Amino acid sequence: MTDYNSTRSGDVAASETSSLIAASKVEGTSVYNRQGEALGSVYDVMIDKRSGKVAYAVMSFGGFLGMGQNYHPLPWEVLDYDARQGGYVVDLDKERLQRAPNYGVNDTPDWSRDYSRQIDAYYGVPPRSL
Amino acid sequence: MTDYNSTRSGDVAASETSSLIAASKVEGTSVYNRQGEALGSVYDVMIDKRSGKVAYAVMSFGGFLGMGQNYHPLPWEVLDYDARQGGYVVDLDKERLQRAPNYGVNDTPDWSRDYSRQIDAYYGVPPRSL
Repeated sequence: MTDYNSTRSGDVAASETSSLIAASKVEGTSVYNRQGEALGSVYDVMIDKRSGKVAYAVMSFGGFLGMGQNYHPLPWEVLDYDARQGGYVVDLDKERLQRAPNYGVNDTPDWSRDYSRQIDAYYGVPPRSL
Repeated sequence: MTDYNSTRSGDVAASETSSLIAASKVEGTSVYNRQGEALGSVYDVMIDKRSGKVAYAVMSFGGFLGMGQNYHPLPWEVLDYDARQGGYVVDLDKERLQRAPNYGVNDTPDWSRDYSRQIDAYYGVPPRSL
């Protein structure tokens, strides 16, 4: 992530203006809960090809030096950007997050409709029409 | 871009299933015109923070070893994915693309509503409500 950002830091710096934000800027952004605890950071963004809407932010969570880390897809709707903290805020404690749908860094979910519904149900957001 | 992708090639390989696609997978994907000419590749994706919709794919265009290259924001709606070519197809010849709204690799557009309307008008897509 560091190498990636450093190669286009100029762009990243100015790519969060107006109402548009660059995906490259979202990636790497910290995620906090309402208690201000750092939960992880956004690793990737899943886009619904048909509607063009961002469906999930995939958050990397836990681990140390890459060990024990895993990915938690969060419905885009549950993330609020907090300019003060410079990151996204979700209403979620660590225990609830640990039990949430997630996959290992070497695993690859099928992003099926069932998987999507499982995520949406866990976070209490309406199922999307994929 | 190479360093970035190589660090998560496993994920990229499987992140285009069902109707969802990872932003990291969109980035780096080639863009062709209807004549099959390679125009460039997707450098970044601009997301409308309010609606959560992808507004533009920023395509890097032209140049050699990074010199003379510039970025062309393309409305997401004008890109069709073609599995056969393994890239996006736009109905656009090189001359039309050269005259399209673009910025240098060291420049940073303000992504204002005016800028957005300028892009949308050029490509003949309805202006979006930013």
